[in-house]
Amino acid sequence: MANQGGLEGIVVADIGTSYIDGGIGVLTYGGYAIEDVAEHATFEEVTFLLLNGRVPNQSEHEQIRAAIAMNAAIPDELVDMMRSMPRQTPAMSVLRTAVSMLAAFDKDAENLTDKDMAADKALRLTGQITTICAAWMRIAGGLPPVAPRPDLNLAQNFIYMMTDAEPDDTASAAVNVYLVLLAEHGMNASTFATRVITATGADMHSAVVGGIAALKGPAHGGANAEAMKMFLDIGEVDNVVPWFEKHIKTGERRIMGIGHRVYKANDPRAGILKRHAEALANSSGQRKWFDIAVKLEETARADDYFIQRNLYPNVDYYSAIVLYTLDLDIDMFTPLFAMSRISGWSAHIIGQMGGRLIRPKANYVGPHDLTWIPLAER
Amino acid sequence: MANQGGLEGIVVADIGTSYIDGGIGVLTYGGYAIEDVAEHATFEEVTFLLLNGRVPNQSEHEQIRAAIAMNAAIPDELVDMMRSMPRQTPAMSVLRTAVSMLAAFDKDAENLTDKDMAADKALRLTGQITTICAAWMRIAGGLPPVAPRPDLNLAQNFIYMMTDAEPDDTASAAVNVYLVLLAEHGMNASTFATRVITATGADMHSAVVGGIAALKGPAHGGANAEAMKMFLDIGEVDNVVPWFEKHIKTGERRIMGIGHRVYKANDPRAGILKRHAEALANSSGQRKWFDIAVKLEETARADDYFIQRNLYPNVDYYSAIVLYTLDLDIDMFTPLFAMSRISGWSAHIIGQMGGRLIRPKANYVGPHDLTWIPLAER
Repeated sequence: MANQGGLEGIVVADIGTSYIDGGIGVLTYGGYAIEDVAEHATFEEVTFLLLNGRVPNQSEHEQIRAAIAMNAAIPDELVDMMRSMPRQTPAMSVLRTAVSMLAAFDKDAENLTDKDMAADKALRLTGQITTICAAWMRIAGGLPPVAPRPDLNLAQNFIYMMTDAEPDDTASAAVNVYLVLLAEHGMNASTFATRVITATGADMHSAVVGGIAALKGPAHGGANAEAMKMFLDIGEVDNVVPWFEKHIKTGERRIMGIGHRVYKANDPRAGILKRHAEALANSSGQRKWFDIAVKLEETARADDYFIQRNLYPNVDYYSAIVLYTLDLDIDMFTPLFAMSRISGWSAHIIGQMGGRLIRPKANYVGPHDLTWIPLAER
Repeated sequence: MANQGGLEGIVVADIGTSYIDGGIGVLTYGGYAIEDVAEHATFEEVTFLLLNGRVPNQSEHEQIRAAIAMNAAIPDELVDMMRSMPRQTPAMSVLRTAVSMLAAFDKDAENLTDKDMAADKALRLTGQITTICAAWMRIAGGLPPVAPRPDLNLAQNFIYMMTDAEPDDTASAAVNVYLVLLAEHGMNASTFATRVITATGADMHSAVVGGIAALKGPAHGGANAEAMKMFLDIGEVDNVVPWFEKHIKTGERRIMGIGHRVYKANDPRAGILKRHAEALANSSGQRKWFDIAVKLEETARADDYFIQRNLYPNVDYYSAIVLYTLDLDIDMFTPLFAMSRISGWSAHIIGQMGGRLIRPKANYVGPHDLTWIPLAER
């Protein structure tokens, strides 16, 4: 039987959360064009939409905002655990560990079947993951963590907990757009991991931990960090073409953040992030990284190899610039992806609950009928 | 496109670790019949076989034993973390968290590509998972953990660290057989989870954490605990038939530990464990649970529903009796499964390293072309 290792084109679930037409660069959340959602929605609206299949009214919007903000605190035991970790630990490893540990302190962690309870857990996890991210940034920097505020939305709370100051509107808005754009994206690898785990009947925390584990990989969520390392390696706009000639014209011909398994046209999220990256670059007075990214995009898009294979910047490419311009350490890029994707994961996990065990097949290619020789005779 | 949610029959990898012919109840490890392996092999031999595709000679066997035993200690930070967890936390949640945290203290945790380094990490994890399991049993019982001994094999070390006494031969042998039998089993759900995570380029600890997360589910590794709860619920041999009439003849007709996605004949592991369960039952003088299991098996196998559907006891059914007779708390059943399966996971993870991103498709069934109405107007 043919090895379908990448599972390309194999449908594993019916979903109502997002629709992708990679051939023409379309992404919708619950029927709404991502361009509209990114322009108008709070991350809380998106979370509500993904969990409920419709947008909230104003009172529901305030309810979900408050439910996230008021349950975002993390136990002292988690802070102690994070403090005990070496400072150079990758933030994704800290986040994976902290979310796993959270299960021990969640009153409903072991309810494996109630979908309403699962939705409440998802909102708690949504707030707590943001708190963990902000707390680790401060702990790793030798600062005390800041508790979440019940009156803020998630993007504001992140900036507040990161800076311990009234959250800046521009920064909060940029974080909000980033969270909105990364919230959900069909059957990506981390989402699929959460479904494989959920299909065994395991608890939501287990599934989310598996999602974080998968997102950590450089071929998935880790790609935004890899893209930024590449921009830093290029260093100057004038170095883009020489760098491209040296590293891309020969060798693997792979540019971090360019090309996508699903999109064979523009990734619509990349265009939106590009505009935000430019606005942030202008307002911060630090255009260099944006200019490098644009120049590299142009250089690649003028190259036959990239033209013929329909390789365009993906969401990781310009999000790297947005996050870097927000003064985030590269190590925090992928955790911010997780802060957002928890909303998509949650919807998929709840959709998978009670579903069939996911158990594909392996093709055995080893020997048969060997005779066991006792160890003493080997 | 048809929804293939369970991925039945879809081949995702070529493997040399194990071969299953579920139709006739055959399982082999690297070409050796599981019956031979279970009768003769140490868990260390099996780990070597799975990682290297051949059995070790005596010197290699001693090397791998020592490599596991001498790297099985866990950092004090992990013990502190475990001590800070509520005592009623499921042991699988503790194990998931502790293995995730281990990454922060492993010098090669972030090497994502070197397969030899990965094999060394696998041996460290193999020993450390056993140490974590034993440590949590003691911590949850209010006792100080015991450090692993460099001169023991893994089964002996587990009994030693659990009891803080010279390991009993019968108990060590029973644990060894259990570890051997559960070590590897094709493309099961937790193994598949480790591959989905590894295919993103993520680190080995992330993959193993995802494997533990998936194993926790009651439809997978959690089934041995569920089976034991069922035996306890039945309580007496005389209650088997009334219990079966009441709970199984009507309703879901599902018996925990009977029936398997792959085996449509005897699960060969179940027969081996049944013999060990009987021997342990006789030597311990406590035959009750074994007798209940046998009586329930006979009752089910005489029932048309179970006959027609080829439903036989699987590995979880009699392993529950073995583990319970070893005086293990039910909460520790699935962690013991993880102690064993780390060897299979490791081989699959190394086999998957550098492979293609695993990204199936979703079928969108939600609305299209919705017009965004501003929140203020909703």
